[in-house]
Amino acid sequence: MARKGLVPPLGKEGKLKPLLLQGAELKAEQEKAKTLKKVPMTSRETSDLIMLGIGAFTPLDGFMTYDDWKGVCDKYLMADGQFWPIPITLSADKALADSIGANEEVALVDPSNKDEIMGTMKVTEKYTIDKEHECKCVFWTNDVEGHPGVANVMAQKEINLAGPVKVLSESFYPTQFGEIYQRPAEARKMFEDKGWQRVAALQLRNPMHRSHEFLAKIAVEVSDGLYIHQLVGKLKPGDIPADVRVKAIDVLVENYFVKDTVIQGGYPAEMRYAGPREALLHATFRQNYGCSHLIVGRDHAGVGDYYGPFDAQKIFDEIPEDALQLRPLKIDWTFHCFKCGGMASLKTCPHGKEDRLLLSGTMVRKTLSEGGELPAEFSRPEVVKVLQAYYGGLEEKVEIKLHGAATGDVKK
Amino acid sequence: MARKGLVPPLGKEGKLKPLLLQGAELKAEQEKAKTLKKVPMTSRETSDLIMLGIGAFTPLDGFMTYDDWKGVCDKYLMADGQFWPIPITLSADKALADSIGANEEVALVDPSNKDEIMGTMKVTEKYTIDKEHECKCVFWTNDVEGHPGVANVMAQKEINLAGPVKVLSESFYPTQFGEIYQRPAEARKMFEDKGWQRVAALQLRNPMHRSHEFLAKIAVEVSDGLYIHQLVGKLKPGDIPADVRVKAIDVLVENYFVKDTVIQGGYPAEMRYAGPREALLHATFRQNYGCSHLIVGRDHAGVGDYYGPFDAQKIFDEIPEDALQLRPLKIDWTFHCFKCGGMASLKTCPHGKEDRLLLSGTMVRKTLSEGGELPAEFSRPEVVKVLQAYYGGLEEKVEIKLHGAATGDVKK
Repeated sequence: MARKGLVPPLGKEGKLKPLLLQGAELKAEQEKAKTLKKVPMTSRETSDLIMLGIGAFTPLDGFMTYDDWKGVCDKYLMADGQFWPIPITLSADKALADSIGANEEVALVDPSNKDEIMGTMKVTEKYTIDKEHECKCVFWTNDVEGHPGVANVMAQKEINLAGPVKVLSESFYPTQFGEIYQRPAEARKMFEDKGWQRVAALQLRNPMHRSHEFLAKIAVEVSDGLYIHQLVGKLKPGDIPADVRVKAIDVLVENYFVKDTVIQGGYPAEMRYAGPREALLHATFRQNYGCSHLIVGRDHAGVGDYYGPFDAQKIFDEIPEDALQLRPLKIDWTFHCFKCGGMASLKTCPHGKEDRLLLSGTMVRKTLSEGGELPAEFSRPEVVKVLQAYYGGLEEKVEIKLHGAATGDVKK
Repeated sequence: MARKGLVPPLGKEGKLKPLLLQGAELKAEQEKAKTLKKVPMTSRETSDLIMLGIGAFTPLDGFMTYDDWKGVCDKYLMADGQFWPIPITLSADKALADSIGANEEVALVDPSNKDEIMGTMKVTEKYTIDKEHECKCVFWTNDVEGHPGVANVMAQKEINLAGPVKVLSESFYPTQFGEIYQRPAEARKMFEDKGWQRVAALQLRNPMHRSHEFLAKIAVEVSDGLYIHQLVGKLKPGDIPADVRVKAIDVLVENYFVKDTVIQGGYPAEMRYAGPREALLHATFRQNYGCSHLIVGRDHAGVGDYYGPFDAQKIFDEIPEDALQLRPLKIDWTFHCFKCGGMASLKTCPHGKEDRLLLSGTMVRKTLSEGGELPAEFSRPEVVKVLQAYYGGLEEKVEIKLHGAATGDVKK
C-alpha cells in the first residue's frame, strides 16, 4: 500500500545528477580550467554551484537561462516544464561578460577563498534581468534596505551568464564538517541502510531547544526516521556557528531520542530568507536527499515581517500538484504549556499566554552569555551547557572554526 | 498538490450507499415485513445490518455470498474484486433455512429487543462455511474458549443466508445517543462545514486518559481535524458504558483541545476483537465516514495475546495497494516519561521503565472505584472526576443507560 523505497529525486529521469567530476576527468578539467577566463562568484553563487555539484539541485545542469529564470519567477517552471521554485543564476559585470564569446568555457572562482577554481561553465547565453521583478516574485518585496535576500539580488552584476557546469570542488565543506557534510547519495544510502522509507527532514539553522525537539518528535512519531538537516553555509552575523549547533544537537539526540531514529547532516547552501519560496527550495532539494517530508513550522526561512507566519505552509497548496512527491509536515507554533503539562502547539493547546513558557531570543542569548540557566521546559540542560560554553567562551574545546562567521557578535 | 475534499467512500461508484429506507418506502416495507418469515439475528448481525443501513459498509448491498465470504477470508476480496477485510454474514438454523425458498424475502429481527423488525432480505443463496477456516483467517486462532470473536463465529447457526437487504430501523441508537450517533453522510457534512480535508479517526472503546490524548494530539498536529469515534455497540462486561465515556471525553476536549479541532461521534458496531483484521475493518468504514487517517496504536482491537502488539499496523502493508485511500497513522506505545518531561512513545523516548508512569488497568479501576486520585500525568483531573462518579455511583446524573451493558462488573 505504501510507496516502496525512498522518494525519487526530481526530474524525468528520477535519478541523482551530481555535476561534480571525479578522478582523471576532474584532473583534466582542473588543468584546462587554469587556462580559462575567470568569473568570480558571490558566496551564494558558490554554494549553489556546490549544491549542483553534489546533486542536491538535480535535475538542473547549470545556471539558468533567461527562459528558465522567467518561468521560475512567474510560475515555478523551467523552460522544459520542470518545477523549480527559485532562480539559480550567475551574474558577471558587463566588461567581463562582453569579453566572453558564444559557447566559450569559463572558470568559476571563489574570490573569498583565494580565487579557488570551483567549476567550469560553457556560456550558452548572456542576458539581463529585471531584478525588481525577481525580488517581487521570490521575496514578495523590493525592500533593499531591510531584506538581505533582496539586497543580494540587487547587488548582482549586470549580466547573467547561463550554461551547463562541471563542478571541481566542494570548498572547505568536506574537511571542515567531516561526517556531518552529506551528499544526497550518501544520505539516501544511510536511510536505506536503516530501512527507512518515510523520512522527515528538519531544516535547521539554530540550536535545538525543546520547541524544535517537539516538532522533531512529532515527525518521528509519524515517519520512519528524522533527518536533522542543518545549513552549514554562510550565516547572518550573530547566528551560532555550525559546529556549536552540531554539538548541541548531538547531546540532545543522545539523551532524548531513541537510537537509530535520527540522522544529523549538513548541507552547503546559504540562506536567501525567501520565506515561502525558500521553503519550496528546501523541499525540492530535500526530495533529492531522499526525504518524503519536510517539517514546515512558523515563519520558515523568513526574516523580519515580510511573510505571514504560515505563508510558507500555504504555498505548498499553490504549486502544481505533481511538482513534488515530498509533502510538507505543517506544524503550528510550539512551546511548553504548564496547563497542558508538556509541549504543545497553537493547534493543540487551548490555554492562554500566561500558561505558556515564552522566552524572547534576546533574553535567551543574555541568559546564556551570562552563564545563567534556561528553564528545563525551554531547553534541555545538556544543550544549555554547550551553548553557555560557546557564549561564555568558557570551554576551550568549542572551537569557532566556521568559515567567515563572526565569533564575537551575538547580537541579532 | 493535496487531494481536494474528503476521501471518497469505498467502491467504484465513490458514493455512499445507505440501505436504510425512508418515508413512504419505509412504511410500505415495514408493512410487508410483518408478513414475512422471521430470521432472528445475533447482536453482531444486528449491528452489522445497521452499519449497512447507514452506509458505513458501502459498497456492500447485504450479507455476503459464499464467494464473497471465501474471497474475503482468503484474500480480502469480494467476488466482484472489491476489497473487504472481514466477512459480513448472517446465519440461520437449518430448519429455518430449509423453509426459505429461492429468492424468498424474509424479515430480519432482533430477538434482544422484542423481535423488532430491523430489515428485510431477499435470500439469493444458502450455504455452509468452514467456520474454523474463517476463524483462522480472521482471528488467527481457533481458540473457542479464550477468544470471544472465535466463540461468536463458532456459535453461528449452520446455514449462512446471503442477499441484498433493506434496512428499516437503527434500533435504540438515534434516541439513546442523540448527536453522538452519527451516520457517515452526517460526519462528512460536519467535516466539510469545518473545511477539513485530512481527518484522522481515533477508534475508542475506553475512556481517554493522557496516553490517548497524546495519540489524538499527534493526529491533530498533522491533520485538519480529529474524529474521536467511539464504539457504542455491545461491550464486554466490565467495559465503561458509552454515555460515561462520552462525558469523560467531553470534559477532556473542552479543557485540553483547541475549539473546532475535534468532533466526537459514535458508531453502532460491536467489537469482534479480530486485532489486525479488525483494524482494517475500522479503516474501511472510517474511509466511508470521510476520514483520511486512522490512528493505529498498540494492540488495536486485540484481546489476550493472540496478536503481536504491532500486527495491526503491519497488516496495512500487506493488503492490495489500492484497497484503501485512508492511511494508518501508526503510533507506538505511549506514556508519560518524567525524564522527557512530558508524554512520549517508545519511538521517541529513550529512557527506562523506571522513568515512565505505567499503571495497570486493575490499579486504575481500583483507585477510581475507591474515589482515589490518579496522577495528573496519567489522567486529567476533570476526566478522573467523571470516572470516579461512575465507579463510585456517587453522582446521580451519570445514568447507566447503555443497552445490555452490565453496570456493576468492573473486572476485566
